[in-house]
Amino acid sequence: MPALTRVPRGSLTDQVIDQLRERIVGGQFPVDQRLPVEASLARELGVGRSTVREALRVLVHAGLLESRQGDGTYVRARHETDAALRRRVLKADVINAYEVRRAMEVEAARLAATHRSAADLARLHELAAARDDAAGPESYRRADRALREHVVECTGNPLLGDLYRGVVDPLRSAAAGLVDEVDLVRDDPARPETADLVRAIADQDPRAAADAAARHMDAVLRVLTVMLQAAPIRRHS
Amino acid sequence: MPALTRVPRGSLTDQVIDQLRERIVGGQFPVDQRLPVEASLARELGVGRSTVREALRVLVHAGLLESRQGDGTYVRARHETDAALRRRVLKADVINAYEVRRAMEVEAARLAATHRSAADLARLHELAAARDDAAGPESYRRADRALREHVVECTGNPLLGDLYRGVVDPLRSAAAGLVDEVDLVRDDPARPETADLVRAIADQDPRAAADAAARHMDAVLRVLTVMLQAAPIRRHS
Repeated sequence: MPALTRVPRGSLTDQVIDQLRERIVGGQFPVDQRLPVEASLARELGVGRSTVREALRVLVHAGLLESRQGDGTYVRARHETDAALRRRVLKADVINAYEVRRAMEVEAARLAATHRSAADLARLHELAAARDDAAGPESYRRADRALREHVVECTGNPLLGDLYRGVVDPLRSAAAGLVDEVDLVRDDPARPETADLVRAIADQDPRAAADAAARHMDAVLRVLTVMLQAAPIRRHS
Repeated sequence: MPALTRVPRGSLTDQVIDQLRERIVGGQFPVDQRLPVEASLARELGVGRSTVREALRVLVHAGLLESRQGDGTYVRARHETDAALRRRVLKADVINAYEVRRAMEVEAARLAATHRSAADLARLHELAAARDDAAGPESYRRADRALREHVVECTGNPLLGDLYRGVVDPLRSAAAGLVDEVDLVRDDPARPETADLVRAIADQDPRAAADAAARHMDAVLRVLTVMLQAAPIRRHS
């Protein structure tokens, strides 16, 4: 595979870009952290401040960093796929984003039923129990989210995982109020979809797993549609 | 929604970046076209060559442009989502990428059956006829591709369309030989999935449409798995 973003070799700026990018991807500069100031980065990397400034600009445009006026430069995303997807999803219609999420939840459920290991299943049962025991909406939402992310992990498909997070995370952070309400409605204990999903993955029944995930997402989409009709202004774009 | 990639205002480089980006997104600089040389861009935009050089560097790193040593700068992708997805998909396992493609083809079929207009359906029938009449593998593949992309268009979900192309296009261009062979196997006239898909979309039957798309992708994945076992070296990563 050829290097896809080859730039003229030996450029100092490119080396600085690569070093900063590595620290972001590697997690030494975690998301939401403020970067050291230009002068300190320049000293540490042994280059001029203008080189650092140019490298930061590239990484801001790539969506990895965010420059907050009068405050500093913050890490916004760990991967460029995340950053690009985030921008794209935030411009999308909320219903469209949920339809994409449905595509991935259903396929994840199907693949999880096929590929989950015994350890995956033990963890799934733990997460389902934590979700059942959650006290209050905030801890319920956290537990529900952990369970669904684990189902995606069980597929053994990291590309699906990246795309799933790339679509779901910006929906959570951008339309937080909206998504929270939808998630609360999901909490209805009369709705058995999630228990069905866990059981189907345990039974290694891909069809039943996909079906449970589809029923869950259809319920979420129905709630979302009603809410958007009541408050159309909250619909993206 | 706040601007997500805000950079210090008034920077000349940022203005040049925005102008070049607009021409790429707007299609005035189409994919695979070579850009005018630095001096000519600088003259046209009324800025210095070093400003142009810095802007080009940012767009190379964003994946929109590609600098080919001793040749020039070419447009590599029209959108940053495309560019970032392309990089990610090219690093992924081929089977994983096809699993993601399956998720999107199935959901697209389901939504197309629900949302397609009368004009969409007329076009779908045209494309299906062109596929049936295709002479030779190359024109068959082109027709098959046009039909599947049209199904995604029928959903009225542009986010799904972007992600679909972002996953499928790099698979086509990177693993061209492999994908071509898979596509040829798809050509088996004894396999009725595509006719079923078209009929289900015509009948506005989302369940039958999703089922036909799923059977099609399962057949493709079976072929792909056998081929990768025969030639494991062609598997990505």
